[in-house]
Amino acid sequence: MSLTSVADIIKGSIPVGEIVAVNGWIRTRRDSKAGISFLAIYDGSCFDPVQAVIENTLENYNDDVSSLTAGCSVRVTGKIVESMGKDQSFELQATKVEVYGFVDEPDTYPMAAKKHSLEYLREVAHLRPRTNIIGAVARIRNTLSQAVHRFYHEQGYIWISTPILTGSDCEGAGEMFRVSTLDMENIPRTDDNKVDYDQDFFGKETFLTVSGQLNAETYACALSKVYTFGPTFRAENSHTTRHLAEFWMVEPEIAFADLSDAATLAEQMLKYVFKAVLEERQDDMAFFAQRVDKECISRLENMIESDFVRMDYTDAIEILKKCGKKFEFPVEWGVDLQSEHERYLAEVHVGGPVILQNYPKDIKAFYMRLNDDGNTVAAMDVLAPGIGEIIGGSQREERLDVLDARMAEMDIDAKDMWWYRDIRRYGTVPHAGFGLGFERLVLYVTGVQNIRDVIPFPRVPRSANF
Amino acid sequence: MSLTSVADIIKGSIPVGEIVAVNGWIRTRRDSKAGISFLAIYDGSCFDPVQAVIENTLENYNDDVSSLTAGCSVRVTGKIVESMGKDQSFELQATKVEVYGFVDEPDTYPMAAKKHSLEYLREVAHLRPRTNIIGAVARIRNTLSQAVHRFYHEQGYIWISTPILTGSDCEGAGEMFRVSTLDMENIPRTDDNKVDYDQDFFGKETFLTVSGQLNAETYACALSKVYTFGPTFRAENSHTTRHLAEFWMVEPEIAFADLSDAATLAEQMLKYVFKAVLEERQDDMAFFAQRVDKECISRLENMIESDFVRMDYTDAIEILKKCGKKFEFPVEWGVDLQSEHERYLAEVHVGGPVILQNYPKDIKAFYMRLNDDGNTVAAMDVLAPGIGEIIGGSQREERLDVLDARMAEMDIDAKDMWWYRDIRRYGTVPHAGFGLGFERLVLYVTGVQNIRDVIPFPRVPRSANF
Repeated sequence: MSLTSVADIIKGSIPVGEIVAVNGWIRTRRDSKAGISFLAIYDGSCFDPVQAVIENTLENYNDDVSSLTAGCSVRVTGKIVESMGKDQSFELQATKVEVYGFVDEPDTYPMAAKKHSLEYLREVAHLRPRTNIIGAVARIRNTLSQAVHRFYHEQGYIWISTPILTGSDCEGAGEMFRVSTLDMENIPRTDDNKVDYDQDFFGKETFLTVSGQLNAETYACALSKVYTFGPTFRAENSHTTRHLAEFWMVEPEIAFADLSDAATLAEQMLKYVFKAVLEERQDDMAFFAQRVDKECISRLENMIESDFVRMDYTDAIEILKKCGKKFEFPVEWGVDLQSEHERYLAEVHVGGPVILQNYPKDIKAFYMRLNDDGNTVAAMDVLAPGIGEIIGGSQREERLDVLDARMAEMDIDAKDMWWYRDIRRYGTVPHAGFGLGFERLVLYVTGVQNIRDVIPFPRVPRSANF
Repeated sequence: MSLTSVADIIKGSIPVGEIVAVNGWIRTRRDSKAGISFLAIYDGSCFDPVQAVIENTLENYNDDVSSLTAGCSVRVTGKIVESMGKDQSFELQATKVEVYGFVDEPDTYPMAAKKHSLEYLREVAHLRPRTNIIGAVARIRNTLSQAVHRFYHEQGYIWISTPILTGSDCEGAGEMFRVSTLDMENIPRTDDNKVDYDQDFFGKETFLTVSGQLNAETYACALSKVYTFGPTFRAENSHTTRHLAEFWMVEPEIAFADLSDAATLAEQMLKYVFKAVLEERQDDMAFFAQRVDKECISRLENMIESDFVRMDYTDAIEILKKCGKKFEFPVEWGVDLQSEHERYLAEVHVGGPVILQNYPKDIKAFYMRLNDDGNTVAAMDVLAPGIGEIIGGSQREERLDVLDARMAEMDIDAKDMWWYRDIRRYGTVPHAGFGLGFERLVLYVTGVQNIRDVIPFPRVPRSANF
């Protein structure tokens, strides 16, 4: 008798007739008039629970089995048999049921077997992985994460951990959280009555990173191909379905590469990870297609089969101006595109993924490479039908004099950036990279609408519970 | 003509006679009297640079090639030939050398080809990945990280991201960093003159996590097998070679498991990742064995071949008391073991890895499962020869009444832990897990002495540069 997972039973890895044990939690119990109970037992190893069939002649039927409710934890031993039911191929003919833990007050169990709203589930984020949808999200997240690591590893990239704590506040990607060990009730002051950060843990003002890119560049300019995969932070007071204060980012950085190379890498990576979820998580994807977003599988299939169309920002502006569609935000060369514009380009004009490139320099960061026209920079956004921007990247300015001029223009102190400038002084190389917000990728894959439902414990304004 | 990596040339993947191009940085240039220059070109794809042989008849020999110094970036095109030299099997007979970037003031280039101290290299952490040792560390880190993900994935574990920002300060693993967006120059106050955290970003006091364990437990008690791999933080004013303020941790959590299962998993995981580095990074490991710690390969081989000896804390105390060795810190039942004791047990008494278990409850955390003796808890430490503790873990207390009693004893407010208690109220299960400090693993594998040299940008008291 060996211990097995529900997944191994469901997919038929265990020969019929074999005696196995399985550990898990009760999803439902159904009793037939013929004196047989059916337990649906879930262990997280796949979307479906396994059905255990229990006769009321079992020794502890009255003491234990008849009291089992949703959420109780059990170990069931029994024989693998082909199922008569239409919902499963194999089931377990139980010879023994051991209870690890009952549910305290089953009537008020927060995960009782009924339909719960996603809003409600956020209030019980410690229990919601026991639901179909949050369990499926967790497995999809894992599959995407594993696929990301595998993709870069196969291509010779080196994973690096860029720092979370940073003394640099010029990354320019948004509001930052301050990190400190100063006594807030009694902040030390300097002689001129400023906060004395010299007494803080790091001896200076310190923040949570908004991007690992600048650090990753230093490693790419030594080891050629690197990527980060770690948490990043924005202290923005955004209450949307697309923003988190804490989220994970994937940021590859490639030396000896230009914007086109970064665009190619982005396309290859997306296709690779989409293939992985479609192949490895058919069960969970079928659930999302059935219950959440019926396009979610075909959308990924289309992305895999599409050639991503590359289009200049300037051309896109012309298209949007001439398209005859009335947008909420008017379009003019120089403006930042809104989601409505991005989605029009991807969904209507191209009817597939678009890589928009060469944006006006005035709406982009200081480190992006100035194009020969003097007005645009080698930036790109990958726009996907159904969501808009999913990846943002650029070729980095590798010419020290041009970088210095851009920093001066944007009031960034070159002295603070001495190490970033060094990379341009010592064997500078063209290099490029991009950032992929991991939770937005999960939204795109699953069709889930609110980003708070695709990370285990979401952090948003006024909420850092659990 | 195709672009290739140095690794592919070195390992003989490119047929002799083929014309290829390679991008990289010059390590050294050597000129022979016969008018031939030898460039060592490094691109980070493996430990060794490739040698390019350049005749002084090349068009830009005088303009470019003769000015190349360590750190310059180039693209060299040429034919793969078998090498006459003893240091490499294949080399590149160059037909073209293009320079991407020279080195500004080669005489003061911080990475000029000479011996640098590790202390000095920390001052130039943005350039140190260009050195042999830090490049090798980066590749080993990557190999270990990939192996960790692969190991858990193959075993059916789900990677979850536990939150970095936490409102919970009772994780009990050490001093925490505060995270805030309050204006430090002008802290808002409540009516009774306390800091008004209600006005802070999350509406309450918030910290950086010291461990993902408590959150991971909630997911393990829904999906059975999970692990985290992410950054954790300690605001401890430790100036040792073994402590970082920011470091990465691997934390598996297994439902339906006891201490012995966690110990088995720890042993399997370590052996798996050690095998991976020995197989995949022979070049880098040979370097560490030659230059840093001549035991580093045999140490891993011994670990792979050893059965980890399991020993009770109580027995270990007896052994230490009777061994006749004089320790700096005296040994008595109830004390926390010091590194000298741990190393004695692993290196002298057993002569191999030891899993020490069942520690006195008074020196361990509230969540560890109380043993039947009432005095010890189901905690374990994995002690490795040469380093001491490398993994710490425990079976978790799954019995609500015992947990509540322990929390009361240790002055932990049960109300704050309502969600953690819920896991014991609703289908509780025996579960266990452990934590592995990723940087300590890298120290152990490489033999590098200072933990600041095995993470790209170390964060320690008074230092958060770059």
